[in-house]
Amino acid sequence: MRLATVMGSTGTTAAVLDGTDWRALPAPDLSALFAGAGEALDPAAVAGQAGVVVPDAVPVLPLPRPGKILCCGLNYGEHIAETGRELPRFPTLFAKFADTLTGPTDDLHLDPSAEWDWEAELAVVVGRTLHRADRATAAAGIGGWTVANDLSARDWQRRTLQWLQGKAWDATTPVGPVVVTPDEVDPTAGLAISCRINGEEVQRDSTATLVFDAAELLAYVSTFTVLRPGDLVLTGTPGGVGMTRTPPRFLADGDVLETEIDGIGTLRNTVRLRA
Amino acid sequence: MRLATVMGSTGTTAAVLDGTDWRALPAPDLSALFAGAGEALDPAAVAGQAGVVVPDAVPVLPLPRPGKILCCGLNYGEHIAETGRELPRFPTLFAKFADTLTGPTDDLHLDPSAEWDWEAELAVVVGRTLHRADRATAAAGIGGWTVANDLSARDWQRRTLQWLQGKAWDATTPVGPVVVTPDEVDPTAGLAISCRINGEEVQRDSTATLVFDAAELLAYVSTFTVLRPGDLVLTGTPGGVGMTRTPPRFLADGDVLETEIDGIGTLRNTVRLRA
Repeated sequence: MRLATVMGSTGTTAAVLDGTDWRALPAPDLSALFAGAGEALDPAAVAGQAGVVVPDAVPVLPLPRPGKILCCGLNYGEHIAETGRELPRFPTLFAKFADTLTGPTDDLHLDPSAEWDWEAELAVVVGRTLHRADRATAAAGIGGWTVANDLSARDWQRRTLQWLQGKAWDATTPVGPVVVTPDEVDPTAGLAISCRINGEEVQRDSTATLVFDAAELLAYVSTFTVLRPGDLVLTGTPGGVGMTRTPPRFLADGDVLETEIDGIGTLRNTVRLRA
Repeated sequence: MRLATVMGSTGTTAAVLDGTDWRALPAPDLSALFAGAGEALDPAAVAGQAGVVVPDAVPVLPLPRPGKILCCGLNYGEHIAETGRELPRFPTLFAKFADTLTGPTDDLHLDPSAEWDWEAELAVVVGRTLHRADRATAAAGIGGWTVANDLSARDWQRRTLQWLQGKAWDATTPVGPVVVTPDEVDPTAGLAISCRINGEEVQRDSTATLVFDAAELLAYVSTFTVLRPGDLVLTGTPGGVGMTRTPPRFLADGDVLETEIDGIGTLRNTVRLRA
């Protein structure tokens, strides 16, 4: 099942893909759909709720109001190697705010004084409430998969020991275009993840090489904080980011940034440096 | 003006102190009161809305749903020195979740396998929307002051480079008991802040010695993310935490933790280690 929040000529709504049509679901967006589904989103029930075809539907930010967004850093072997670190025993976690997110085709308005780098990431949408979940419970609590790019202001990220101020600029993390339910894709078995700038591939890896996979991350996080339907966990980025290149490369005005995971979808965002 | 969310025999409500009485305000809690006040909480308007005396009123968590919680680490000279670091050029920032907060007299249910340390902190409540605010605008956007204790699971905090997993355990950051408006106290001029365990003082400093004061923190944060009425910024802790002692000292089952700022109020929480 492929879900999205779509904007059509009749407004914005949660929707489910039916062939090439988006059919309206009885929720204003996927945040409301996941929150309202209670203890799990039932694909049969969702299919039964599918209504009219939304005219001129375009996917927008699927989850506008996650209660929590957690991100894992240093979670692909090659990216860990390029930052000069060893394989970790524990996931490195930081938070973003709902305001940090933006849509799958939105322009990225970035402060031109900062050094903006790309980080293609697999994101997992929490499907049921998880509290001190073991791995199996956490795996069953995966509500869906989507694509994200954890754009990072590297100079701000490095100003202090804590990365937040480089990672939480408003509207700098594109997410979407769709949320694919676990019956349809299995990133743990391996999906190609890639990032392109103006068509040039800068990152490519397989989600099978994650050090901590989604189930492990959800279980770990749920040790200290409850996860609820619609919460979002970003699983980290592969090698190939701009800051570790010689010389370092950062995003430039007008760059078209594409972030793709096979079987899920592609984000396509244009960089607008603006003071 | 002293505001609180109080629980009385007739339920929970936002309230304003009138002598020794808490009078009900037309909002279920201070999160709703600040959000509903629009661009600024007007003391005269609030006073005019004060209703009946709430019987048996007890202050609970004043802000149950901040949209954002940011925390500054390493912000008092003495605490920076005890961690062996130099005075910072930029504030070290990390986030908490609304779930991380708990009330001013609530028991602290802590995982007994972790090393729990105390961090008495001045917290500032955002009073108006701040986006790329300069210092003067940020200062005018301070909605009130309260007390917090940024309890930290030190072993989890040190597991990775990022502190979040030691700082965001559910219901481990007591906040309250009241929010005092800026017309009544001026922490920048200096208020005594202290922490006691079973009556023994373990931290004492003055809020005048903050490296980055509240106005500076709000302005800095508003560079990258919008702050809204009811958001919360914790300003960091003075010297005297447990992890830097020889030997290190952590909280024990039954410890009574008191966190006090003169002119604002006192948190009084009992530690309950539970698996």
